[in-house]
Amino acid sequence: MQDALLALTRYWTERGCVVVQPYNTEVGAGTLNPATVLRVLGPEPWRVSYVEPSVRPDDARYGENPNRLQTHTQFQVILKPDPGDPQELYLGSLEALGIDVRAHDVRFVEDNWASPALGAWGLGWEVWLDGLEITQFTYFQQAGGMSLDPVSVEITYGIERIMMALQGVDHFKDIAYAPGISYGEAFGQAEYEMSRYYLDDADVEANKRLFEEYAAEARRMLDARLPVPAHNYVLKCSHAFNVLDARGAISTTERARAFGRMRGLAREVAGLWAARREELGHPLGLAEAPAPATVPDTFAEVTAPGTLLFEIGTEELPPAEVTRTVEAVGKAVADKLGATRLAHGAVEVHGTPRRVVVLVPDVSPREPDAEKTVRGPRVSAAFDADGNPTKAVQGFARGQGVAVDALGRVTENGVEHVALVRTDPGRGAVEVLSGLLGEVVAELRAEKNMKWNDPKLSFTRPIRWLLALLGATPVPVAVSSLAAEPKTRVHRTAAAPVVEVPSADGYLEFLAGHGIDASARQRRDAIVARARELAASVGGVVDFEGVLDEVTNLVERPTPILGSFEERYLELPAQILTTVMRKHQRYLPVRAQDGSLLPHFVAVANGEVDVDLVRAGNEAVLRARYEDAAFFWRADLRTPLEDMKAGLDKLTFADKLGSMADRAGRIAALARRLAGEVGTGEVGSGEGSTAAETLARAGELAKFDLGSQMVIELSSLAGVMAREYAERAGETPEVARALWEMELPRSAGDAMPSSTPGALLSLADRFDLLAGLFGIGANPTGSSDPFGLRRAALGAVSVLRAFPDLKDITLTKALALAAQELEVSAEALDTAREFTVRRYEQQLLDAGHDHRFVNAVLPLADAPAVADATLAELTALAGDPDFAALVAALQRVRRIVPADAVGGYDARSLVEPAEVALHEALAGVPAGVTGLAAFVAAANGLTGPVNTFFDEVLVMAEDADVRRARLGLLAAIRDLAAPVLDWQALGTALG
Amino acid sequence: MQDALLALTRYWTERGCVVVQPYNTEVGAGTLNPATVLRVLGPEPWRVSYVEPSVRPDDARYGENPNRLQTHTQFQVILKPDPGDPQELYLGSLEALGIDVRAHDVRFVEDNWASPALGAWGLGWEVWLDGLEITQFTYFQQAGGMSLDPVSVEITYGIERIMMALQGVDHFKDIAYAPGISYGEAFGQAEYEMSRYYLDDADVEANKRLFEEYAAEARRMLDARLPVPAHNYVLKCSHAFNVLDARGAISTTERARAFGRMRGLAREVAGLWAARREELGHPLGLAEAPAPATVPDTFAEVTAPGTLLFEIGTEELPPAEVTRTVEAVGKAVADKLGATRLAHGAVEVHGTPRRVVVLVPDVSPREPDAEKTVRGPRVSAAFDADGNPTKAVQGFARGQGVAVDALGRVTENGVEHVALVRTDPGRGAVEVLSGLLGEVVAELRAEKNMKWNDPKLSFTRPIRWLLALLGATPVPVAVSSLAAEPKTRVHRTAAAPVVEVPSADGYLEFLAGHGIDASARQRRDAIVARARELAASVGGVVDFEGVLDEVTNLVERPTPILGSFEERYLELPAQILTTVMRKHQRYLPVRAQDGSLLPHFVAVANGEVDVDLVRAGNEAVLRARYEDAAFFWRADLRTPLEDMKAGLDKLTFADKLGSMADRAGRIAALARRLAGEVGTGEVGSGEGSTAAETLARAGELAKFDLGSQMVIELSSLAGVMAREYAERAGETPEVARALWEMELPRSAGDAMPSSTPGALLSLADRFDLLAGLFGIGANPTGSSDPFGLRRAALGAVSVLRAFPDLKDITLTKALALAAQELEVSAEALDTAREFTVRRYEQQLLDAGHDHRFVNAVLPLADAPAVADATLAELTALAGDPDFAALVAALQRVRRIVPADAVGGYDARSLVEPAEVALHEALAGVPAGVTGLAAFVAAANGLTGPVNTFFDEVLVMAEDADVRRARLGLLAAIRDLAAPVLDWQALGTALG
Repeated sequence: MQDALLALTRYWTERGCVVVQPYNTEVGAGTLNPATVLRVLGPEPWRVSYVEPSVRPDDARYGENPNRLQTHTQFQVILKPDPGDPQELYLGSLEALGIDVRAHDVRFVEDNWASPALGAWGLGWEVWLDGLEITQFTYFQQAGGMSLDPVSVEITYGIERIMMALQGVDHFKDIAYAPGISYGEAFGQAEYEMSRYYLDDADVEANKRLFEEYAAEARRMLDARLPVPAHNYVLKCSHAFNVLDARGAISTTERARAFGRMRGLAREVAGLWAARREELGHPLGLAEAPAPATVPDTFAEVTAPGTLLFEIGTEELPPAEVTRTVEAVGKAVADKLGATRLAHGAVEVHGTPRRVVVLVPDVSPREPDAEKTVRGPRVSAAFDADGNPTKAVQGFARGQGVAVDALGRVTENGVEHVALVRTDPGRGAVEVLSGLLGEVVAELRAEKNMKWNDPKLSFTRPIRWLLALLGATPVPVAVSSLAAEPKTRVHRTAAAPVVEVPSADGYLEFLAGHGIDASARQRRDAIVARARELAASVGGVVDFEGVLDEVTNLVERPTPILGSFEERYLELPAQILTTVMRKHQRYLPVRAQDGSLLPHFVAVANGEVDVDLVRAGNEAVLRARYEDAAFFWRADLRTPLEDMKAGLDKLTFADKLGSMADRAGRIAALARRLAGEVGTGEVGSGEGSTAAETLARAGELAKFDLGSQMVIELSSLAGVMAREYAERAGETPEVARALWEMELPRSAGDAMPSSTPGALLSLADRFDLLAGLFGIGANPTGSSDPFGLRRAALGAVSVLRAFPDLKDITLTKALALAAQELEVSAEALDTAREFTVRRYEQQLLDAGHDHRFVNAVLPLADAPAVADATLAELTALAGDPDFAALVAALQRVRRIVPADAVGGYDARSLVEPAEVALHEALAGVPAGVTGLAAFVAAANGLTGPVNTFFDEVLVMAEDADVRRARLGLLAAIRDLAAPVLDWQALGTALG
Repeated sequence: MQDALLALTRYWTERGCVVVQPYNTEVGAGTLNPATVLRVLGPEPWRVSYVEPSVRPDDARYGENPNRLQTHTQFQVILKPDPGDPQELYLGSLEALGIDVRAHDVRFVEDNWASPALGAWGLGWEVWLDGLEITQFTYFQQAGGMSLDPVSVEITYGIERIMMALQGVDHFKDIAYAPGISYGEAFGQAEYEMSRYYLDDADVEANKRLFEEYAAEARRMLDARLPVPAHNYVLKCSHAFNVLDARGAISTTERARAFGRMRGLAREVAGLWAARREELGHPLGLAEAPAPATVPDTFAEVTAPGTLLFEIGTEELPPAEVTRTVEAVGKAVADKLGATRLAHGAVEVHGTPRRVVVLVPDVSPREPDAEKTVRGPRVSAAFDADGNPTKAVQGFARGQGVAVDALGRVTENGVEHVALVRTDPGRGAVEVLSGLLGEVVAELRAEKNMKWNDPKLSFTRPIRWLLALLGATPVPVAVSSLAAEPKTRVHRTAAAPVVEVPSADGYLEFLAGHGIDASARQRRDAIVARARELAASVGGVVDFEGVLDEVTNLVERPTPILGSFEERYLELPAQILTTVMRKHQRYLPVRAQDGSLLPHFVAVANGEVDVDLVRAGNEAVLRARYEDAAFFWRADLRTPLEDMKAGLDKLTFADKLGSMADRAGRIAALARRLAGEVGTGEVGSGEGSTAAETLARAGELAKFDLGSQMVIELSSLAGVMAREYAERAGETPEVARALWEMELPRSAGDAMPSSTPGALLSLADRFDLLAGLFGIGANPTGSSDPFGLRRAALGAVSVLRAFPDLKDITLTKALALAAQELEVSAEALDTAREFTVRRYEQQLLDAGHDHRFVNAVLPLADAPAVADATLAELTALAGDPDFAALVAALQRVRRIVPADAVGGYDARSLVEPAEVALHEALAGVPAGVTGLAAFVAAANGLTGPVNTFFDEVLVMAEDADVRRARLGLLAAIRDLAAPVLDWQALGTALG
């Protein structure tokens, strides 16, 4: 292992990195060393590499857990500015470690990093070696709350994991640390003893006092404008906090306060550092950005129609962005081509993680010329009485650069003007494409964008090359620092990773020849076909759920590989196994015909690899993960549910909203109140008196599994584990089910609660979240929704829609009940309600409902099930001419009645027959009908009288009493219809 | 610089060292990393190397001082056990750094290391590269209060210094840290800001609280039996203390308490670690000791007399030990040879730092045989009446392994015994020498001894080889793990560092041929001759004072090199310059004929070196040191004397005796009280009223220069700088002189005070020390005298002897006056007085005075000047027959008078003429004479009457009255003589 550290140090030193020493106070990660967290700020260049023993008291396990240590070894590299080829440099470092990157499956898997405590975030990847995360690779975008310019590349190697993989050992203690001495021999005692300190023996009060002392010193140093010692004390603060946390000694209020304090201090340190460096005149100089690329002044001419090939080469895009970018680029190219006079065939776009390929056949060599008439002054103003040109026309001619003689005439709207007819010459295709393609690149945006070494571009990951050919003719494209070349990059591990591209024609085959399948469909089909073959070879079928799209866009050419794991792990709940496979490893589970899991999986490697090597690696990773899971499983099964639940006290929920235990308590109470709203009969319907008991018990246990080791590790198993552990702890199946259903639905399209107790708990969970977070002003903004309020609102609406029996639980009531134990203003509750209604609206629109119908039923959305029913009726009535007539009649009524007119009238004032008839028709409508269909049935008789009324009666009679009565009559009709739906939104065009 | 760290890491890794990371809390030195301070304990083997950024708040200088940093970089190596060739390994590491050890002058200069706080000590060297200390090399003997077995070798490189030398830069900031980035660029801001924290901005109270928290946690962890976290907190404690110290915030009591606490904790940590490792079954195994060497069963026989060559090869001995060892080995060889029957020539012994060479010519090839008579039972008991052998004689014969018949007879004291005459055959010379030489090595001891990898031997430095030849015949010698071989080791940098030695004859020439001068005299002469030549070449003469003996024994062949420094440094006081040259660099100053310094020096390199390179290196070192000194000089000159004096508050003097400021105050007060003893007239004698003023002012300023930067750096300049700074600050020349003289004499033979105020301050200084330290029980023991009480006592006596005018200041009075401000028991004062008298006695004996005379005047030693005078008179009288007769007469008197006889008699009881005559003679002796000479003159007349009295009178008359009168008469004579000197000590043999 020490040789590995030396090899890395040497490798990066040779690439211009300064070596510094680990920081001499405890840090949780190499990032916190000032050589990273401070040096990435400001404009100075900086390249550094160092080892950082990273201390994480929470990970202390007495040295017993094979993969978890209170002090693990990071190797940290910072490249500032981004050198343009950091991934290639990184791969070189793996080779320096003796890793054959050609034989192994090395992948860059999307991973975004954010540390709110540091005011920092970045985009990048986990680097996988045969499925094992060995490195964190991040383009730092912000630190200390400041945008970084230039951007730094941060590479963090997890040395113990790499060593375990390289040496093929299962426990960190077995790593050969140095010749003849194992990791355990060198550090085992310290690992045990420091674990003892962090987990059992650290003095809580002393560490609290230390925290205060450190924070105070940091504060003082900031005031003294000394960022280095200030940072030092922030780190000590952070460590003291971590010790307290590991000791389980941080209460919710303390946690929130501590985080707030550390965050504030860290940001001030960063700001002060940047300011001080500026005062010092930036001693290391200023980083230089790459020079802007240029296009030539003249463009090649092509003579025959040809195929346009345009490739945007990137570093590994997030899988979802591959699809999005393909669509966006296709649209942009088509739109922009459409705005030119260039004839062309259909735009075809493909994407892989590393490229977007645009192919447009039959692009004509030139635009045709076009004529363009420029209108001048009226002829009457252009020449004086003598026919001599006036100043006006002279000026126009001069402006157009021609003599007055050259002007013609044009008649517009019957007025004759002087005019110049110009020929707008068509441009060559290369010239047109040059500008157009440049714009496409410059305008590329993703959901979340980043900067790299390019001074102007911004995208989800760095764009590294452009390839543009029209037939065999290079199209010069220059965007910021990028210039197109007739070259592409193939697999980084290829003998020649950069290859010349002779022609646009046959480019997909050209790529295929280099082991790259540009078409996602092709890759997907290949995965499906091969994975099925592999599964069949062990008598199984592949479960493609969830990850197929993702893996399709994680590779440029898929190499599915069948792996296996030990059967004994099948004793674990299947959802644990599949969660690990899918979520952590992007493996496809293999099932028997009866749906039960088989001890196999399909991993999808990228391109040509040593299959046996990669299989073995992936199997080892899965084994370690399952071993972990089995460890948690066994540990949890030994733990009483109440003990797990007690752990919730330690988990902060959100500032001002207490701990997760507080939240669980509120959910239980709210569920009871909601049950009260619908009557115990409702709760118990069909299930006897046990339903109330179920609700009570499930409420007591609510969210207990968040305190289980399994869920702490695999948070997506929340609810799943609650059910598993509750069942095994002897709770009734109903309670177990309710605990599980409380978490449903977890996303759009997810399963829904099936029991009323489950539904009530689910609603309570979501309304508590909505009321609570809107109450503290944590409203979602833009794309930021850290607490998942959109999902919560959608979930609540979905449950209410799925349980029409619970229709008495309106949004307004539910939120008000939720607010009983919280301090929430009326405005906040209103905002929350409105937010939820909007989600419902969106849900309806997404389902394809007519937006007018949707709008029409929205006033009923406080009870979504009611609105649903109305919408259904409305939809059913949509083609009905009687209904259309009724609607039209009602609209006539609404249009004429002022908003402030009161519904009600003195019938004696009505004398005209039409008005009397209408009065009688109205009187004939039965009271108390609910629902649209019933209303229509009841009110259908009004259509004729209304129309007759308008035909024969002048509403605005001169006699005030008469006028009042007529308006009152109409207003009464309006008011009768009003609660049914929003007639105005419906419009009139129902035919 | 980073390349250097990598090169060292690589080098030591290849030699089996584990690499660990710097410790993740602040440490003052790499030694404190648990990889050293804990791992050296116990029997487990351990080889480690690591970088350690070492934080020393006290060295913070805002990055302004070119050589001093609050964080400097150590590279630390631990080799456990001692591999047997650590120096050679170390030299290899210098070569790995690109240092040509053949061209440079690399030297191992005695340096012993001790950290009472860690309960640790070791012996070893500073390693010098052309005069620059670049490495600390130590054989760890104890740590945590425990003796180490096996011993570890600790090598600590000072990386910044090495880099400055290798790169030829004058300021650490200019070190090229990495390509394109200087040390200052990389770390300058941190250096400045952390200096600010340590020196100016650290919150004192907060750091005191941190200290307490850390100490408490360390205590708790010890109680929990967790040495690793306990050690961690001890380190944090230590750092907090260092911060407080740098802030000048540690009061004397706090310092003592803090040290005591840290020491206690550190020792407990060490003990606990060792115990825990044992409980864990010593996971790294047990270190193996070298196998014992053996000698063959039979020995070679030589046939002719030959020369014995015996060489004991060592690592660099301390210079003083070279001389001592040469003497000790010579004596041991001579004694042991003398105890054999082997004829031989005179024993000749030479020594260099690396070898002791014994040459004995004409060793005979064998011992002659010898006869030996063994006495048996008396003949009368050996045979019964029938002449048959008794059981007694049979037993004797059996015991001797012979038949009774073989026994002869021998007469002893007139009694005839049976006896056996055995021949004791002489052994061969090789056999004799084999055993004898082994004993010499096994019995070698120095003043301070150490262990290395040898399981049994112990000496001042490791013994690494033995060479023993009798003529050309190897003499097998085996001592513990060492076996003699016919090989020696020459310069380590020689092409072949180990060479075969063909014969004992001509060995000194053989060595000379390999560039080694075994004879110290020869080396010394060579230095003197060449240094004179070199000095003459610049018109100067060499000042050999002080260092010549040392440099003679620092090299195996001297290569004096003339170096120069810039003239501008001559503006500094000469004593600063010479102190730096001698004490720090062992250079010989070069003076002009008038005694003033020239800007040159002579350095003495070892063996063949690249003279220009070594000169340049030494010049650079001296320049840096002078630059430092000039920096301190200028800084001090800007500082008011009172401010420097205020700094004494910070300096602890000793436990319970307050700070140095307290001590300075006591000295001033004591000097005033001593002046009172001799009357103001005495103080002022010859100097008018200014003398009292001088004493008062000098008292106020006493020891102020201990607060100067210069003396903090160069403590041997205490007093010198006081004079310099006082003069320049406008004090009177008398005050400046008194401040300087207060420190005199600093050693035996040093200059003495010349003024009375100076003498009084000097006495006050020394008596305060004696009374204070004896008062707290810090008596010197054996060779341990950390406070220099021997020197103080000698100094006090010397001053009193030099100032007879101050004879009223007796030891008793001075100590009593000193004790006025201290809590000192009467017993302690008595012990101090006795201790001082013993020093005086030793001084007299060392000066060659007859021990009887010395003993005779010792009763007067309370006033050494008086005793001196008496001794002088006694010596003058020594040959005088009258005096001898007087002494004899007085001795006769003393012998007969019982101790309890009272001097005084009734003259009327005296009747015999002789007794009457004696009475009259006694009555004629004038009263009140003082001094021996006066007494003799006065009492000379008693000789005759005394002798006559004894001849004619029987003292013990039967008449009680007569007897009483006679005894009373004699007792009166005894009492008259008693105060003059100790007549009994004088004995009678004065002829």
